[in-house]
Amino acid sequence: MENTIEGNKELNTSTITVGRLYDMLCDIHKEDNNRRVVRLGRVDPTDNPLFRTTAVALDAITRALHSYNFNCYPPTVGLLEAKSAVADHLSTDLPHKLSADNVFLTLGGTQAIDIILPSLARPGANILLPKPGYPHYDFRATRCVLEVRHFDLLPQRGWEVDLDSLEALADENTVAIVIISPSSPCGNVFTYEHLKRVAEVASKLGIFVISDEVYAHVAFGSKPFVPMGEFSSIVPVITIGSLSKRWFIPGWRIGWIATCDPHGNFQKSGIVNRIIDYLEITSDPPTILQAAIPGILKNTTDDFHSNNLIIMREAAKIFYDGCKEIPCLTCFHKPEGAMVAMVEIDFSQLEGIVDDVQFCTKLAKEESVILYPGVAVGLKNWLRFSLAVDASDLKDGLNRIRAFSLRHAKMS
Amino acid sequence: MENTIEGNKELNTSTITVGRLYDMLCDIHKEDNNRRVVRLGRVDPTDNPLFRTTAVALDAITRALHSYNFNCYPPTVGLLEAKSAVADHLSTDLPHKLSADNVFLTLGGTQAIDIILPSLARPGANILLPKPGYPHYDFRATRCVLEVRHFDLLPQRGWEVDLDSLEALADENTVAIVIISPSSPCGNVFTYEHLKRVAEVASKLGIFVISDEVYAHVAFGSKPFVPMGEFSSIVPVITIGSLSKRWFIPGWRIGWIATCDPHGNFQKSGIVNRIIDYLEITSDPPTILQAAIPGILKNTTDDFHSNNLIIMREAAKIFYDGCKEIPCLTCFHKPEGAMVAMVEIDFSQLEGIVDDVQFCTKLAKEESVILYPGVAVGLKNWLRFSLAVDASDLKDGLNRIRAFSLRHAKMS
Ligand SMILES: Cc1ncc(COP(=O)(O)O)c(C=O)c1O
Ligand SMILES: Cc1ncc(COP(=O)(O)O)c(C=O)c1O
Repeated sequence: MENTIEGNKELNTSTITVGRLYDMLCDIHKEDNNRRVVRLGRVDPTDNPLFRTTAVALDAITRALHSYNFNCYPPTVGLLEAKSAVADHLSTDLPHKLSADNVFLTLGGTQAIDIILPSLARPGANILLPKPGYPHYDFRATRCVLEVRHFDLLPQRGWEVDLDSLEALADENTVAIVIISPSSPCGNVFTYEHLKRVAEVASKLGIFVISDEVYAHVAFGSKPFVPMGEFSSIVPVITIGSLSKRWFIPGWRIGWIATCDPHGNFQKSGIVNRIIDYLEITSDPPTILQAAIPGILKNTTDDFHSNNLIIMREAAKIFYDGCKEIPCLTCFHKPEGAMVAMVEIDFSQLEGIVDDVQFCTKLAKEESVILYPGVAVGLKNWLRFSLAVDASDLKDGLNRIRAFSLRHAKMS
Repeated sequence: MENTIEGNKELNTSTITVGRLYDMLCDIHKEDNNRRVVRLGRVDPTDNPLFRTTAVALDAITRALHSYNFNCYPPTVGLLEAKSAVADHLSTDLPHKLSADNVFLTLGGTQAIDIILPSLARPGANILLPKPGYPHYDFRATRCVLEVRHFDLLPQRGWEVDLDSLEALADENTVAIVIISPSSPCGNVFTYEHLKRVAEVASKLGIFVISDEVYAHVAFGSKPFVPMGEFSSIVPVITIGSLSKRWFIPGWRIGWIATCDPHGNFQKSGIVNRIIDYLEITSDPPTILQAAIPGILKNTTDDFHSNNLIIMREAAKIFYDGCKEIPCLTCFHKPEGAMVAMVEIDFSQLEGIVDDVQFCTKLAKEESVILYPGVAVGLKNWLRFSLAVDASDLKDGLNRIRAFSLRHAKMS
């Protein structure tokens, strides 16, 4: 294998996928000991045994299977009833109702990104991405000659967007700004007012907003989730959605793109047509899974979601309290959404560890804890934690990290 | 819509997908009458009510669902047990056994093509494709700057490859030859001897063979299906496979790429690594469907397949006999494999119809029969029939085509 973490301290997230990084960290752990591994890296909610999807989801597929009506090739534009169900689902929170035509079905949020970014690429074009962010955006942009410009999310301000910097970053070739809301990897939920200001700035800059809402409604602190589509009369919005996280079924690969655009700007600018053209050369989600979407969206009970939020709130508390016990780590903002969090490493307190990649590599080796280095999400010398794990795993992981930090503490 | 068939007689299969063509033909029919439509265009076996997938397939998914073990993200390299099952399944017919490492899971045969062709593309490279063929190859090659060179399949010789022409076509920039076996759209099954000669010619030319076997074992005439991997000691072979056609589940999007390469040429040439790299930037098949593969491959009974072959043999007979009753159509070879067939149109017998596109357009309008013009598969002025339909539909369709031909017959 060409890329090894050990030999590649300046990890380049545009040349190495996070999936491969994950595999490498797991390999490092495996080589060195047989201790039970604690995975706080990849955000796969099925890692938590409490996070079982609802029986409603199984029923929806079972009914599709037994009808024998959905073994056929998917229709070129996607299954109408599934698109309508997504439109209805999103519309309950929006001032402007969506229709099936506003929805495109994708293989998870990932394929939504894979389709949107190349649809925007043209010579010279650039896109504004959050830092830290979700690395697949950078990865995909690099592969379709779309220049990436990063704006900061500010830890001291609850990870809000550094709005002041946007105007300096954007120019006449900027096409869009990406917001991840609730925020991965920061774990914050944006307020109504802040999102409105993002919309206003984008409108002023003449760009549109791509709102990645794969964690929609995963808000367990005091702030409610506000969909960006709320502000679509200010600025056109493309929403990315997914059942992966909130329904605990990332392995079903069910996601979507939705356009919230009451003034029809996307039609005029040709973006919708470019998305449709691009969909034609990408793989369709299996019909049998498309067919399950209406049942899942319509029949899932509120209890399912609210119980899960209680579990996540508890994990956030364990995490936040646990971090306080680890001298070299600082969590600036108690997680209140998504299933992830960022902490800063204070290297002045550590002996013989010089960066986040080395921290994670040694941690995998010595403690069998898998954690992503911040550089993988664009923020060098931080760490990214998944909170989508069992409470006992989270505690165990934090304890091991504490032991690790103490063992490597600088003698003063 | 930009492309309309009426205004676009020189239909360009590299700019219009067959899916869109299908939608357009259906639209033409709809505009003009309410007669029940007979679909002999797209090869979707679920169009035939007798072609129901086996309960084994439903069980396999149901078990995966109820285990709750496969809701997780797919492993980056694919589910090991699924890859092993495919390797075992293919190995039963091969002299050199395959292992899980030789298998890559894909979203149907389509994504296999989507992955292989760009993996081969480099400036100046070219690939040999059959004519007639499966249009997705041309479509995909155009999009990744891989030059296409067509070799003929010879109707008068049972649709065998025009081997003599290959040497003139290939040069030092030729990377591979594609064989579709059993043949779509020709409906023939290649003999052992002929495939061996293809392997020998490819070996002599220093290129490898991509054998599209999405219709593997769909052979209902006198010739058995022979996998190209049989000759992998002569020439390295990449096989494309799929459950879509033989199991009647195209809507599950389950397929694979398998490398049959006992001398390890693909490793040496770097092709396997390029495929792996390319897989990393494409969507993975849903874990829940990957998990069903072992059960489907291992538990499907021989009866399921042999009963289906009986139905297909009957359809081929109805088709072949029916064509004889239509003066302007010639079927050179009785279909013996796949679920498709080609017939030539004799325009000297028709009044006011000048090409295959016009034939299909008028037919959709006047008779509500959906049929693909040969140009869509690279053979102008022929027609492509799907045989994966109900016998009564096939008879009805042939009767309508007969009525149509007689109505448009040239007065002599
Ligand atoms: C911000 C963000 N966007 C998109 C995705 C991809 O969504 P999916 O898992 O449905 O493909 C993820 C997954 O982790 C994510 O965190
Ligand atoms: C020759 C050939 N290759 C590949 C495919 C695509 O396979 P799948 O339907 O599994 O995507 C088809 C489908 O019609 C085909 O006929």
